[in-house]
Amino acid sequence: MKIKDYQPSDKATLFLRITDCQFRKTTANNEYASMLGFDGVDLIEVKIWSLNDEIKEKLKNGEIYELSGTMKDYQGKMQFNVKDVRVVGEDEVDRSKYYSSAKIPPIKLKALINEYIDKISNLIIKNIVITILNDYEEQYYIHPAAVIMHHNYISGLAYHVYTMLRLSDAYLEQYPYLNKDLVYGGIILHDIGKLIELSDEKSMEYTKRGKLLGHIPMASNIIFEAASKLGVNDSEEALVLQHIILSHHGFLEYGSPKEPAIAEAALIFMLDYTDSRMAALEKEIENTEKGEYTDNISAFERKSFYRPKI
Amino acid sequence: MKIKDYQPSDKATLFLRITDCQFRKTTANNEYASMLGFDGVDLIEVKIWSLNDEIKEKLKNGEIYELSGTMKDYQGKMQFNVKDVRVVGEDEVDRSKYYSSAKIPPIKLKALINEYIDKISNLIIKNIVITILNDYEEQYYIHPAAVIMHHNYISGLAYHVYTMLRLSDAYLEQYPYLNKDLVYGGIILHDIGKLIELSDEKSMEYTKRGKLLGHIPMASNIIFEAASKLGVNDSEEALVLQHIILSHHGFLEYGSPKEPAIAEAALIFMLDYTDSRMAALEKEIENTEKGEYTDNISAFERKSFYRPKI
Amino acid sequence: MKIKDYQPSDKATLFLRITDCQFRKTTANNEYASMLGFDGVDLIEVKIWSLNDEIKEKLKNGEIYELSGTMKDYQGKMQFNVKDVRVVGEDEVDRSKYYSSAKIPPIKLKALINEYIDKISNLIIKNIVITILNDYEEQYYIHPAAVIMHHNYISGLAYHVYTMLRLSDAYLEQYPYLNKDLVYGGIILHDIGKLIELSDEKSMEYTKRGKLLGHIPMASNIIFEAASKLGVNDSEEALVLQHIILSHHGFLEYGSPKEPAIAEAALIFMLDYTDSRMAALEKEIENTEKGEYTDNISAFERKSFYRPKI
Amino acid sequence: MKIKDYQPSDKATLFLRITDCQFRKTTANNEYASMLGFDGVDLIEVKIWSLNDEIKEKLKNGEIYELSGTMKDYQGKMQFNVKDVRVVGEDEVDRSKYYSSAKIPPIKLKALINEYIDKISNLIIKNIVITILNDYEEQYYIHPAAVIMHHNYISGLAYHVYTMLRLSDAYLEQYPYLNKDLVYGGIILHDIGKLIELSDEKSMEYTKRGKLLGHIPMASNIIFEAASKLGVNDSEEALVLQHIILSHHGFLEYGSPKEPAIAEAALIFMLDYTDSRMAALEKEIENTEKGEYTDNISAFERKSFYRPKI
Amino acid sequence: MKIKDYQPSDKATLFLRITDCQFRKTTANNEYASMLGFDGVDLIEVKIWSLNDEIKEKLKNGEIYELSGTMKDYQGKMQFNVKDVRVVGEDEVDRSKYYSSAKIPPIKLKALINEYIDKISNLIIKNIVITILNDYEEQYYIHPAAVIMHHNYISGLAYHVYTMLRLSDAYLEQYPYLNKDLVYGGIILHDIGKLIELSDEKSMEYTKRGKLLGHIPMASNIIFEAASKLGVNDSEEALVLQHIILSHHGFLEYGSPKEPAIAEAALIFMLDYTDSRMAALEKEIENTEKGEYTDNISAFERKSFYRPKI
Amino acid sequence: MKIKDYQPSDKATLFLRITDCQFRKTTANNEYASMLGFDGVDLIEVKIWSLNDEIKEKLKNGEIYELSGTMKDYQGKMQFNVKDVRVVGEDEVDRSKYYSSAKIPPIKLKALINEYIDKISNLIIKNIVITILNDYEEQYYIHPAAVIMHHNYISGLAYHVYTMLRLSDAYLEQYPYLNKDLVYGGIILHDIGKLIELSDEKSMEYTKRGKLLGHIPMASNIIFEAASKLGVNDSEEALVLQHIILSHHGFLEYGSPKEPAIAEAALIFMLDYTDSRMAALEKEIENTEKGEYTDNISAFERKSFYRPKI
Repeated sequence: MKIKDYQPSDKATLFLRITDCQFRKTTANNEYASMLGFDGVDLIEVKIWSLNDEIKEKLKNGEIYELSGTMKDYQGKMQFNVKDVRVVGEDEVDRSKYYSSAKIPPIKLKALINEYIDKISNLIIKNIVITILNDYEEQYYIHPAAVIMHHNYISGLAYHVYTMLRLSDAYLEQYPYLNKDLVYGGIILHDIGKLIELSDEKSMEYTKRGKLLGHIPMASNIIFEAASKLGVNDSEEALVLQHIILSHHGFLEYGSPKEPAIAEAALIFMLDYTDSRMAALEKEIENTEKGEYTDNISAFERKSFYRPKI
Repeated sequence: MKIKDYQPSDKATLFLRITDCQFRKTTANNEYASMLGFDGVDLIEVKIWSLNDEIKEKLKNGEIYELSGTMKDYQGKMQFNVKDVRVVGEDEVDRSKYYSSAKIPPIKLKALINEYIDKISNLIIKNIVITILNDYEEQYYIHPAAVIMHHNYISGLAYHVYTMLRLSDAYLEQYPYLNKDLVYGGIILHDIGKLIELSDEKSMEYTKRGKLLGHIPMASNIIFEAASKLGVNDSEEALVLQHIILSHHGFLEYGSPKEPAIAEAALIFMLDYTDSRMAALEKEIENTEKGEYTDNISAFERKSFYRPKI
Repeated sequence: MKIKDYQPSDKATLFLRITDCQFRKTTANNEYASMLGFDGVDLIEVKIWSLNDEIKEKLKNGEIYELSGTMKDYQGKMQFNVKDVRVVGEDEVDRSKYYSSAKIPPIKLKALINEYIDKISNLIIKNIVITILNDYEEQYYIHPAAVIMHHNYISGLAYHVYTMLRLSDAYLEQYPYLNKDLVYGGIILHDIGKLIELSDEKSMEYTKRGKLLGHIPMASNIIFEAASKLGVNDSEEALVLQHIILSHHGFLEYGSPKEPAIAEAALIFMLDYTDSRMAALEKEIENTEKGEYTDNISAFERKSFYRPKI
Repeated sequence: MKIKDYQPSDKATLFLRITDCQFRKTTANNEYASMLGFDGVDLIEVKIWSLNDEIKEKLKNGEIYELSGTMKDYQGKMQFNVKDVRVVGEDEVDRSKYYSSAKIPPIKLKALINEYIDKISNLIIKNIVITILNDYEEQYYIHPAAVIMHHNYISGLAYHVYTMLRLSDAYLEQYPYLNKDLVYGGIILHDIGKLIELSDEKSMEYTKRGKLLGHIPMASNIIFEAASKLGVNDSEEALVLQHIILSHHGFLEYGSPKEPAIAEAALIFMLDYTDSRMAALEKEIENTEKGEYTDNISAFERKSFYRPKI
Repeated sequence: MKIKDYQPSDKATLFLRITDCQFRKTTANNEYASMLGFDGVDLIEVKIWSLNDEIKEKLKNGEIYELSGTMKDYQGKMQFNVKDVRVVGEDEVDRSKYYSSAKIPPIKLKALINEYIDKISNLIIKNIVITILNDYEEQYYIHPAAVIMHHNYISGLAYHVYTMLRLSDAYLEQYPYLNKDLVYGGIILHDIGKLIELSDEKSMEYTKRGKLLGHIPMASNIIFEAASKLGVNDSEEALVLQHIILSHHGFLEYGSPKEPAIAEAALIFMLDYTDSRMAALEKEIENTEKGEYTDNISAFERKSFYRPKI
Repeated sequence: MKIKDYQPSDKATLFLRITDCQFRKTTANNEYASMLGFDGVDLIEVKIWSLNDEIKEKLKNGEIYELSGTMKDYQGKMQFNVKDVRVVGEDEVDRSKYYSSAKIPPIKLKALINEYIDKISNLIIKNIVITILNDYEEQYYIHPAAVIMHHNYISGLAYHVYTMLRLSDAYLEQYPYLNKDLVYGGIILHDIGKLIELSDEKSMEYTKRGKLLGHIPMASNIIFEAASKLGVNDSEEALVLQHIILSHHGFLEYGSPKEPAIAEAALIFMLDYTDSRMAALEKEIENTEKGEYTDNISAFERKSFYRPKI
């Protein structure tokens, strides 16, 4: 049985990988656990109201459990209220089914992104990029780009970077006034702070550092540190790469402490904006039949889209 | 002598093509004329305070005049206060220098856009596009896309369409869930209402219809009319093309009466947003030396951009 | 037993006319039905979680059913979770009680509105109005003006138009600079697009066209088409009527692609704004005792009003 | 010679009534005077840069002077830079031409408003209204309603009240659930605070009290005081009248400390909103020829309106 | 058993003091009661769905009841759905535990605030303050400052005033250009309208006057009345004190009909803003362990704060 | 002669220190210079329209020149249009009069701030603070805090820090739950990025780094670097200090990439907000007589304040 086989009020037992698990208190001071459960196909919100120390110790983000409880609905959002939690043995389930991944495997993504790095001719930019990717080699190609919004799967971040690089080629051809090295370097590094903001590719939760500092200022620190190590902190290149990172959300109210003030930063903001939304739509459109509406989509302020019958 | 040779307080005589010419009244009820003057390189704001009927009859948007008067500055915006207006004889100046054009000539743009029309396999979409382009054949390939913001030159509209088509190919390759026919058809028609909103490629002023209806609702009428003529007004294709036109400014507050609710509409909004801004930046970056700041750019809320020394 | 006789957790069986029925999926991919149920007095939100093909085929917007299930509350909003759905025989209930109507019957509304049409002296405006009302004769006098917000009953649209016409007379008397023909014509046509945006006077759901195009651009098409048919598409009258329709929500962020730029358009926006709110208040105030507060009112951003003890 | 006979750079001598006269300092600490000048037809902005004590003592809001100086333009706003100021003798000009008035004389306005007071049947409301109008009898029928926005002339306030009363009758007829006494009483008192916020019908400047307290809280005090005097401060009537005054700007951001929470308050807000805008439009439309655009209108965020050729 | 001992779905019986009790109707027209329950430590939302006249008569804001029913959760907010209501005998519970109070007892607060009044040297300000505090002597030192946001306990208002007075001393020392008398007087009176806006220190509900007028305009009336009584209504002091009250929420959209326009008003706005938020944080931080997050805090738009491990 | 002795149209010769000097182009592509000039008492906007290479080489921010030209006014803002620029000899003027300073000399500020550093008991915080202040020792005590808004004079930054430290003591006493070390450390470092954002205490212009990165992200880098050097980058202290810096503008739209999420960060935001505004008011109130209005104040969105006659 899978999530989609249950309806509100049903008793249910499901194998679920949990992510974004948090211990909170109700307004009346009772502790409970709130998390997302993934059955390999669908996501469901999971709550454990009667939380005790035994259960708390069992729960680890990114792990698979057999959960039993009752289904409820909240205005069309299904919720799984769990009473029992059982750790699942190593061979009990086909674990690979519980971790979705980018369409391209990490090793291939690495090769494809390296081709772009090879094309960077400015040595300062190239060295900053290589230095940082070496430091974060293990995570860069397997990390997700987000918990919920878009590219929220294994290698989501590198896949998003690779897509943006490919799309940027169309703009570079059309607008030769753009500096190719800055565009490639900026895209490769723009979300580097997410390696620290989100725990890891399996558990996908916000870290404490992530919540208090945010991925944009942390990325600024990473570039600052790499540039210092290379002795190029006063270079125009290090300055401009930092500007690209700081401004890539486009507007102050989206969390960028600076708005784009160089052309390449403006392009990267718009590419990131467009690619993240087209990717979020992709997932929903593919699950929707022609002539029907999609679910509400987080990346579009929870609006629903129509798939035309054409 | 050209615009850039004068400074505030200088007496000046210039050959200028005028656009966006309007007769207004001051708060104290005096009539004056306000327009833009173009010397083939730079634009300047022109005012004629002592307006009489003789001068009013002479002034025609898009024509070239010899204007004499005094330069003034308004907080860094130069203004040319004109006393005398002389009509310029046919051979007195090299007229072609006063009308800037897209990088690709109209006939070539027509061929390139036709290649995309050929690729549309859905016959309803294809027929609507062909019907409308036939109706507006004379203007489509020479019209500007705007008075000031971006692509404000001869063939600006078709050039903008062609650029968007090329950029869309990168997205279609990356996101095969998108319907190619809708994307191509939507891009080709998205700004069709501007053929009515803006007078013509030489005078470039807002028409009365344009000011009262706006290019988006007029484009909706154009598609409605073409689809009626073809007897396909109830088709999914006509419906969805209209939706794309109505939503291509992305948000209600930008003048779209509907926000994008199909994936292709979302893409066209973002492509239009990105291309118009990258084109506006192109013009400014090319006129700015490395290490310097550009002028304030209308398409970016009058912010100035820095051109890095890389 | 009626809606108001039940409290949360009660089992209930009710005869309800359903409207705005939609099939959706929960975030966990289960299909369910969401609709409004009307017992002749009160409205209640209805959900059917265990949806199967048999039930789906039975459900038709605007029809009356005997529904059985359990009452729940959501923060003070009652919700009826239905398990069983039975089609109601033709004579089982007094059907007229399930369809509320305007205070004035359609035939009388038609006569009253015709009196205003007779007063239009400009022939172009008069012909456009008559042409359109002939085309939509069957629906115009029985259609509702909205699903929830205001005038959401049989003949709601025509009743709203008639009220606005009467109120406009007070303004026309006070402000003789206003063009009476434009005011009357504009009011009669301002919501004409709702005949297509909302299905029909019984089912009252948003149509696909309505959701993708919106009633304002569709009304613009209707006027464009009528004016074309009459050969007056280039007339000042057709232009200005279209402007009135396009701007009658007053502000871009309310879905008007143009803001009012002629005096009659400004008046019609304000009359529409005022009348829709006074009508929404009327319904609530009449159901509230002096010294008490009304329910939250959708048309006032869900604020509650006090009815003074005077 | 009148204002409209001069153009920028002209030397000019004009007889002007001055209003809204203020002594300010430039950013560089020089004192200057800024005021509006009215020649009986048009308004012009007047500045006196070389201000000395002699001139300062001469200048009185509401008085007529012979002013000499030079015309300048600021982006289409004419400005009169004055060097010399001469006090005008009693019989030198026809003073009545310099003070524009409502279409109905004060004595007639008083009679008309009294008819409405007679129709108020609730004695508490009636007594509060009568008490306050007795206290402010001298000013109420001659005061303007604003300095610039709308009804900015002698008796403007009472004329605005009378218009609103007449318009309210159309709503009272249509919506009998409304309490007539509250509507009449609320309209008559809604702008009573302006008698203190604006100096008097000739000088029309904001008073110090007006600038620090605003007309809405001062009106609240006036009603509170009258109700106290009558011993009805705890009555429902006094409470609700105060609520109407406090909420008649409709939204917090427009300066209402409370938003309308009774139906009559909602109506008065919308009537005031509509009437003030229709009156502002009236003045401009009457000065604009058919087929032309009006000046920018303060009451519509400085937008220009088109007067159709119908 | 206390609130924190229960979890969703549990049957529960609790002794609770109720506040903010309101009788409402569901959208489906059933009457129910909504209130807050306090067990001496925690607050919980309480609903009584099956409301009858017997229960309605029993319920009084500020009283203690034994309530029985079932616990539910709403997205992490606990809700107590009550079936039975029993009035609690005088000696059944230790009543003092159900009414939380400021850290300083009323009599001491009175003495401390009086010390500040003694320091006011301007006699008009001093007399206005003394007159008003005499009129409201009984309530001033025991009233709460709010229902939920901050200082929502016995003597909360006077405690908040006293804290602001102490903090203001630091600013007065740093910025001697400030008028000490205005600062002290303004602080003491700034929230005086809450004595009428909120019922009393035990029941803590919004009064009808409070809901229709708001505490800011009522405070303006109170000062107006006191100044009238003292014959100083035209004094600069009465004017400026009223301005301070009217502007102390800082911005129109926060309910101030005027924004601060004297330095002392600006300071009092910022002191009030800061102190209310620091007090709201105090309560939450003290209930949160180091390294943990607080509950969502109303005064910070329901954001949660982190308590560092330092 | 000083600035205040001149009026619009006067020829003038002045000794001025220039700051914020920028070379720009008019919309018509002419280069000009824009700067502020300070005569020891007042500031004036200076423009040099006829800019040549000789003048460009002479102009250095922070230097004193003898400038000759003509006075103009822009809506009450005086502007000095300069034709001639002469470098001033070392002894020609009393240079100290052209550089305004904080009320406390740098050496004394250093001692006072050091007393606060001594009170920090947490060694990690203390070491981070000391390390950074050692690195920036030369600038920290003489740098201004802003170009225009507040504390825009020699030692303005350190004086602002010292004031905030003193004010914080009042809050620490009132709210003992706050961590004193974090409050002191956070205040001392909050504006450290301005040492790089603004050139130096004499020239006071935004640096290129400042314009592209902003002082908040640069401060984050400084703390990151100091913590790395000390080997405490993973400490709670370094994390929380960075959070304080990143959030001290309070809201995303004010340029903070994170909003305050610990109590000490919330306090520092509000202290900074309050102190910067009270300091901006101080300067204006002291230059305004009782009963008069101040100039428009940048820090209060260019509003004018009234100084009461008390």
